[in-house]
Amino acid sequence: GDGYRVFPRALAVTAALCPGQGTRDHSPAQVALRDRLLSAVVSCFKRHGAAAIDTPALELREMLVGKYGEGSKLIYELQDQGGELLALRYDLTVPFARYLAMNKITNMKRYHVAKVYRRDNPATTRGRYREFYQCDFDIAGQFDPMIPDAECLKIVHEILSDLQLGDFVIKVNDRRILNGVFVVCGVPESKFIPACSTVDKLDKMPWEEVRSEMVGEKGLSPEAADRIGEYVQLHGGLDLIERLLQDPKLSQNKLAKEGLGDMKLLFEYLTLFGITEKISFDLSLARGLDYYTGVIFEAVLLQQDNEHKEELVNVGSVAGGGRYDGLVGMFDPKGRKVPCVGVSIGIERIFSILEQRLEASGEKLRTTETQVLVATPQKHLLAARLKLISELWDAGIKAEMLYKKDPKLLKQLQYCEDTGIPLAAIVGEQELADGVVKLRDVATRQEVDVPREKLIDEIRRRLEP
Amino acid sequence: GDGYRVFPRALAVTAALCPGQGTRDHSPAQVALRDRLLSAVVSCFKRHGAAAIDTPALELREMLVGKYGEGSKLIYELQDQGGELLALRYDLTVPFARYLAMNKITNMKRYHVAKVYRRDNPATTRGRYREFYQCDFDIAGQFDPMIPDAECLKIVHEILSDLQLGDFVIKVNDRRILNGVFVVCGVPESKFIPACSTVDKLDKMPWEEVRSEMVGEKGLSPEAADRIGEYVQLHGGLDLIERLLQDPKLSQNKLAKEGLGDMKLLFEYLTLFGITEKISFDLSLARGLDYYTGVIFEAVLLQQDNEHKEELVNVGSVAGGGRYDGLVGMFDPKGRKVPCVGVSIGIERIFSILEQRLEASGEKLRTTETQVLVATPQKHLLAARLKLISELWDAGIKAEMLYKKDPKLLKQLQYCEDTGIPLAAIVGEQELADGVVKLRDVATRQEVDVPREKLIDEIRRRLEP
Repeated sequence: GDGYRVFPRALAVTAALCPGQGTRDHSPAQVALRDRLLSAVVSCFKRHGAAAIDTPALELREMLVGKYGEGSKLIYELQDQGGELLALRYDLTVPFARYLAMNKITNMKRYHVAKVYRRDNPATTRGRYREFYQCDFDIAGQFDPMIPDAECLKIVHEILSDLQLGDFVIKVNDRRILNGVFVVCGVPESKFIPACSTVDKLDKMPWEEVRSEMVGEKGLSPEAADRIGEYVQLHGGLDLIERLLQDPKLSQNKLAKEGLGDMKLLFEYLTLFGITEKISFDLSLARGLDYYTGVIFEAVLLQQDNEHKEELVNVGSVAGGGRYDGLVGMFDPKGRKVPCVGVSIGIERIFSILEQRLEASGEKLRTTETQVLVATPQKHLLAARLKLISELWDAGIKAEMLYKKDPKLLKQLQYCEDTGIPLAAIVGEQELADGVVKLRDVATRQEVDVPREKLIDEIRRRLEP
Repeated sequence: GDGYRVFPRALAVTAALCPGQGTRDHSPAQVALRDRLLSAVVSCFKRHGAAAIDTPALELREMLVGKYGEGSKLIYELQDQGGELLALRYDLTVPFARYLAMNKITNMKRYHVAKVYRRDNPATTRGRYREFYQCDFDIAGQFDPMIPDAECLKIVHEILSDLQLGDFVIKVNDRRILNGVFVVCGVPESKFIPACSTVDKLDKMPWEEVRSEMVGEKGLSPEAADRIGEYVQLHGGLDLIERLLQDPKLSQNKLAKEGLGDMKLLFEYLTLFGITEKISFDLSLARGLDYYTGVIFEAVLLQQDNEHKEELVNVGSVAGGGRYDGLVGMFDPKGRKVPCVGVSIGIERIFSILEQRLEASGEKLRTTETQVLVATPQKHLLAARLKLISELWDAGIKAEMLYKKDPKLLKQLQYCEDTGIPLAAIVGEQELADGVVKLRDVATRQEVDVPREKLIDEIRRRLEP
């Protein structure tokens, strides 16, 4: 990052009050950081050939109901003021599926960066808000297995490496494997979803607690729970996949066998991408949302444990996604299916990490791009400033002036220092008489008289990188 | 614009169905056009030294009530699901004022590009939607008169010239002058606002109709209406300002005198900016919103009248704004005022004009930025494609491949043609054996073998402008 001092106003607003619970304003300094972050994510999506679409923040309620399972109770509904019943989008995936179905698109690679809304209990310190950005990349279409799925994981790997967030691991699993595990462990199908959500907690609590929740709250038999435990505590790579393909029970289950076969193929492709060392096939990964049908994945950042320095601990999920082959069909009148796989980057979590890091470093982001301040050293020269600055604007040069009739030269130069403006174009009585402009380099404080007709070219020359 | 053929999928979705009344999806082609438009607007705002802020789409209802007059009934309210009562923002100006007051900022130049929401009767053909973008530039702070106001008009002039939307005029008036007119015409203060909204219709209906609405619906006396008519049908430049400053009645009114004095100053500054020929001091301009306190303005596009070819007719407003010195004080517990002036660019109206123009021209926008398609001429080479494409991605090159195990070469090259990909990197058995890649220029169909280790540099060289 550059070493400019921050806009004093920007500093003043970094501690912006929350306009509503779980929402927040972004100060210029925060927007500058966020835009830097978003552009890194978007340029990765573009590098992979995605086109952008946009959908409204307002969706028909009926489009959103029954798509999110547990999450549905967090949907913001608009008041019935006449007309259609509306709700705020909960994610970008369901609107994408709705878009594909409505437009009968069977084949598309798109990205979408926009805000979504959830009536959640905000944990703003951990970067969880009620209004937050999602950055989604999805591939829709009937293709050969695992090729688009592998690209989604490559994208997560590229973005997390690019942003230098430290060590991370991408956990991968498959809903078909998980379902197969439940079947062979004797879990009745009615209990798959509750069992799933309990398994998902294995990254936050030890197996004993997960087990007692399964038996206690979710009503699984102790034997079933123990059998599940033997599977869901496993994680590894190709070796583990091979072992489970040989597993006498699991290999008998059609779904699990399919899932394991695809997982093996996925690892082959990830090996060609050279990223397997950051991938962990983890049978405890379940993901909350209902609509996943195949591969699921989640990227978590790792940090040294404060107690046991040698251990790396999970400090939170920063990306996730998976395959949802049934969702588009839910919107299609004829139920036509369009297989989809996609990834969502947890930009808010990453933003709060980078924000803390930036504050710690003391580095300040510039919040404006102004190249030249038009200044005057004496009184009664407002007209000269207005004339000169409009010449600069018309030439496409980023220029500012103070909105005072007769500002002190010192104040004008101080403004350059405060806001990181590199050049000052000074017109006084003498310069006007001589038909020149005094061009000052703010950093070196060197000044040279430039003939008025050569000023634009000289400024452009000075600003070349 | 470039001459690429459009993404076939993009074509397929340009006629996207509306997800909800008055809202719409944007197809990749539409997003590409919109982003081109928004970046022209934003680069103008940055050229004038503005910093970006962001505020939530959800505001506390109490923040929005009583700020929009007539408009208030169009505010989207969220259902009370527990917690605070929320509404969707109606514009970006009131949230900006709330932001300034909450953070005690007395001095800021900011821009904000975001969507706002209005429960309006959508006239989507004329580019009016219930969810639409606003592009706002505002200057807050206590400054010398008319300097920031003049810059706002310069910005409108720059953007409309830049976008080549054809001929336009920027109407300017001042709320103080309008109020002065009502006073000297004997309108009771209680009738100022209804009278205002009727005057505002003079650009759509002849004076006779406006007059009868004043007398009939708004209950003004015929004499008052006639006196008003003598003023509000006037428009011109400095000459008119001078004449009104000499007007025996109007010059006696303190408010009107102030307004006319500032209007004169404004025209002096606009003369220095060299844009007065597009500015019209128009006493019929009133603007709907309650919060304006001084200068108001509105830019309208002009087109040749179909009947009377010599005449230019108003084809709609594409920008507007004004001074609102009281709004921030409404949010400040101690009522501290922060004078503000700002402009909002009517991006949706402009978008629909450019969209129609683009369709008429037959020009197609590219919806992706992919530079290289990685292709194979024979079967069983998926691994080779995956290996090569990840090398390109890791080098920052925008690359795609088809998600099939064994796609036909013709299909792969056709994809380049359809989506405007300039280069194809082809690896067959021979190329693998020779350690080269066949680099094909899609336009010229010329192919050369490039040593694998030189490929990245060669691609970069080819892509230089």
